[in-house]
Amino acid sequence: MANEHLSNSTIFPLGRKVDPNYFIGDAYLQMIFTDPTPLNAPIGNVTFAPGARNNWHSHQVGQVLLVTGGEGWYQEEGKPAQLLKTGDVVNILPNVKHWHGATKESWFVHLAITPGQTNWLEPVEDEWYEKL
Amino acid sequence: MANEHLSNSTIFPLGRKVDPNYFIGDAYLQMIFTDPTPLNAPIGNVTFAPGARNNWHSHQVGQVLLVTGGEGWYQEEGKPAQLLKTGDVVNILPNVKHWHGATKESWFVHLAITPGQTNWLEPVEDEWYEKL
Repeated sequence: MANEHLSNSTIFPLGRKVDPNYFIGDAYLQMIFTDPTPLNAPIGNVTFAPGARNNWHSHQVGQVLLVTGGEGWYQEEGKPAQLLKTGDVVNILPNVKHWHGATKESWFVHLAITPGQTNWLEPVEDEWYEKL
Repeated sequence: MANEHLSNSTIFPLGRKVDPNYFIGDAYLQMIFTDPTPLNAPIGNVTFAPGARNNWHSHQVGQVLLVTGGEGWYQEEGKPAQLLKTGDVVNILPNVKHWHGATKESWFVHLAITPGQTNWLEPVEDEWYEKL
């Protein structure tokens, strides 16, 4: 059933498995725009299997997420996790520590538009994630 | 059937009918990102009913299209029209005269990321469009 959900929500290519140093669970990345102009940022399509999430991290310039499928979580340090659904848009401010990923039950797909560098931090441990 | 197709391909909100001065047929626009940072461009979700298309136009800085549903045409002046499908990405160079819109049979939905201004020109007349 999870795979069926993925199939329904895939618009841009799935791509390859992400670097396991920065994620827990199965997640995939396909860069869909990397030209130097006219945007100030590359665009990646990120797909998380149920239960998958990235480590805590921050962006030096910020990041915009456009949710194209499934359901997931976005959490900034010190705040409650927010449930994200298809069609949601998130503007992540510079240097705000946060993580994002799928819910336990659903695949989650978003475009990530990321000017500047990403600073990777510690994993979102099972103990933390299971409490959501 | 056309409406069913639209329903299947709608990820971001449909929004409102576009300015009829710049389009032929029924098309809709919902801006989904307009914050001044961290991107150098706002993002709009554009939906074309079958047969709908925008006028010939150009962008002073350029534009990136991310196709999220349906099938449509992209044509630059002096070149053959290109068929676009879900998942396609187009980088439109500055000051290149072009138009985009749905095929006759399909709805067409794309995100448009547009730094800078748009210069609107003449309509894509029925006689031209019908030959595609």
